[in-house]
Amino acid sequence: MHAEIIAIGSELTSGAKLDTNSQWLSQRLAEHGLVVRAHHTVADDIEELVRLLRSAAERSSLVLITGGLGPTLDDLTRQMMADMAGVDLEINEAALAHLQHLFSRRNITMPERNKVQALFPVGSKVVHNPIGTAPGIWMKADFPPHADIVALPGVPAEMKRMFVEEVLPHLPQGKRLIRHARVNCFGRGESTMEELLGELTARGRDPEVGITVHEATITLRINTSGETPEECEIKIQQTKELITTQLGYLVFGEEDQELEHIVVDLLNERHQTFATLELGTGGALANRIHDYMESPRCFAGGLIYPDMQRALTGLNNLGTESFSENPSLIEVAKAARDLMETDYLLAVSDWDRDMIESDDMVPDVSIVLIADGKEVEKNFTLGGDPGIYKGRVSKAILNQLRLHLLGVDADS
Amino acid sequence: MHAEIIAIGSELTSGAKLDTNSQWLSQRLAEHGLVVRAHHTVADDIEELVRLLRSAAERSSLVLITGGLGPTLDDLTRQMMADMAGVDLEINEAALAHLQHLFSRRNITMPERNKVQALFPVGSKVVHNPIGTAPGIWMKADFPPHADIVALPGVPAEMKRMFVEEVLPHLPQGKRLIRHARVNCFGRGESTMEELLGELTARGRDPEVGITVHEATITLRINTSGETPEECEIKIQQTKELITTQLGYLVFGEEDQELEHIVVDLLNERHQTFATLELGTGGALANRIHDYMESPRCFAGGLIYPDMQRALTGLNNLGTESFSENPSLIEVAKAARDLMETDYLLAVSDWDRDMIESDDMVPDVSIVLIADGKEVEKNFTLGGDPGIYKGRVSKAILNQLRLHLLGVDADS
Repeated sequence: MHAEIIAIGSELTSGAKLDTNSQWLSQRLAEHGLVVRAHHTVADDIEELVRLLRSAAERSSLVLITGGLGPTLDDLTRQMMADMAGVDLEINEAALAHLQHLFSRRNITMPERNKVQALFPVGSKVVHNPIGTAPGIWMKADFPPHADIVALPGVPAEMKRMFVEEVLPHLPQGKRLIRHARVNCFGRGESTMEELLGELTARGRDPEVGITVHEATITLRINTSGETPEECEIKIQQTKELITTQLGYLVFGEEDQELEHIVVDLLNERHQTFATLELGTGGALANRIHDYMESPRCFAGGLIYPDMQRALTGLNNLGTESFSENPSLIEVAKAARDLMETDYLLAVSDWDRDMIESDDMVPDVSIVLIADGKEVEKNFTLGGDPGIYKGRVSKAILNQLRLHLLGVDADS
Repeated sequence: MHAEIIAIGSELTSGAKLDTNSQWLSQRLAEHGLVVRAHHTVADDIEELVRLLRSAAERSSLVLITGGLGPTLDDLTRQMMADMAGVDLEINEAALAHLQHLFSRRNITMPERNKVQALFPVGSKVVHNPIGTAPGIWMKADFPPHADIVALPGVPAEMKRMFVEEVLPHLPQGKRLIRHARVNCFGRGESTMEELLGELTARGRDPEVGITVHEATITLRINTSGETPEECEIKIQQTKELITTQLGYLVFGEEDQELEHIVVDLLNERHQTFATLELGTGGALANRIHDYMESPRCFAGGLIYPDMQRALTGLNNLGTESFSENPSLIEVAKAARDLMETDYLLAVSDWDRDMIESDDMVPDVSIVLIADGKEVEKNFTLGGDPGIYKGRVSKAILNQLRLHLLGVDADS
């Protein structure tokens, strides 16, 4: 069973808005075993729309439409469906009553023009919209392959809820369901990870393992298909175990887990605390930790200074007796840990931001972890996209703390 | 002149990747006066592709294609164009030499399969790719309206550069050029702004003024069309002046300017300094300021604590003598300013994050600005999307400092 998706609206073809609905729908259909063969985005032009809808319904057995269901003159989806089927539009009394109810609940008289939202092509069915004024329309083409044509509103929140609740349960399931899983890793580059994984990333393997990189986090995307969810689940589980065997401590989590979640959870379990001293990351590290709702228990706070000189003056003002003449980041980080009275301190040096605009120089950075009786310092070079430096350095220092908490000596 | 855009790739129709190229191209074409009537995204299926390309070339005088120009078997763009035109593919010697040069520069022997990237439909022209291995293809359909068909790589950086340098200069300009401008405002809600603007936001006005909101920043988008860039520019300038007359100090900048840019530039001009004390924003405020390359001159640093209790303990440890029994945020902020030795201090209280998961309670927040001999405190309620609380509160306190620096008394 093949599907096509049509997104309607001049604001999409003009580039004013980006269509993200078609991608989301394609993912859900793939999971359900249905293959999407094409997306189309069309301006508000009735002739064009009717022609396109007809040709899609002649090729594919499912046509999903998003947008064009509002109350204004340029909302053409109802008319397009009626024209293609050669039928009239008629008022659906139940849909009209629901519309009137929505307005009266907000103490507003329903504008006359909203009445068009209760118009449906003769022979079509209403797709209930629990959160907006635009109901969807479901109709079946009277020519082969007798496509199901389903129109939903363009507002993503409405579209998604209606698709999941009112459309997907009524679609025939494809022969091959698709399932995904993600394993998140940190600490090596993409090509090293690929080498370590060996045959696991071979094309055509089942499950297939793909590698993507986001701000230095390597995500392994496991994709498989099967006749039942259970069959998929077993295959995914086996592949996850193989990945963990190959990568060991380089794997830190799954799905949406980030390094800060792992570190905070480990510290909370142990009733330990930490603080941050940021020069180059300027608060990005603290903010990342703070975003995690469980962090207030272990994250005692952070200090931010634009450079080492002002960190020294600042820490002196804050009560540190005195530093050696040219103190190392470790010495400064220790002083910060004493002031913050925590078990651990994570420190990030500044880096030369002027180099970012240069084509042939890349800045260096140091990160330091202070624990009881132990200090770890790492130095590395920042290259590539400057937009991800802060994320990359924040993750690197969080990963040092993770490895320390797990008792891994990862100096290799 | 109408245009259509075709994006090629099963990774797009499956939802694994989002097509952003079509939106970008639509915007550029609109500026050039060309109207895009449709986008199509199609899987790697040669028959489907040929059929779609032919029908697009029969309807529209410009067809832009992205993707499918790589060296692998599922890269079908070359073949699709040749099949549609009914011609063979032939090696272009100059393109082949360029390819070989790219590989030899990296000391790699060119893989045999890359040779297909030098194949072109007979009668087509090479579109030079300065930064990648995939050249583009330009051909003219031999049936009305004799469409220009231009294929570019799918990699956005390559596609954009080639489009701007090698394609756009050779496209006929539409009769009506389109030009945009943005005016950024802060301090009132969307509907209040709309009221203050009155007739300026009327539909059909030229230039048209649209309102969008992003993390509490209100952006007024001015759109106009004209026969020359100058005509557009004059109309936009006049509308900008009307907006400023209506909104006064609510306007803070244009285009990509953010509140932190304005505040940092003002402080740098005056050789003044500031610091931050963050509870609820957890470093997001400092990080936003730090991101701006000009900030190190005036931004002396920041303190982050997860809650008031730990701020008090922390500041006590840091040398503040003692606080009153239940100190206000103003008192704590003053102590922080003394420690940081700056002209200004911006402070943000914490808020009840547990309320975020509740449907009927919304948290309160306080922001404080400490200046020489002056303190401003504002209290407000956080509602709506919790994902933007940090951005919204950070902007609110930056705006207080902006108003103070401009000498505006904005307590109304």
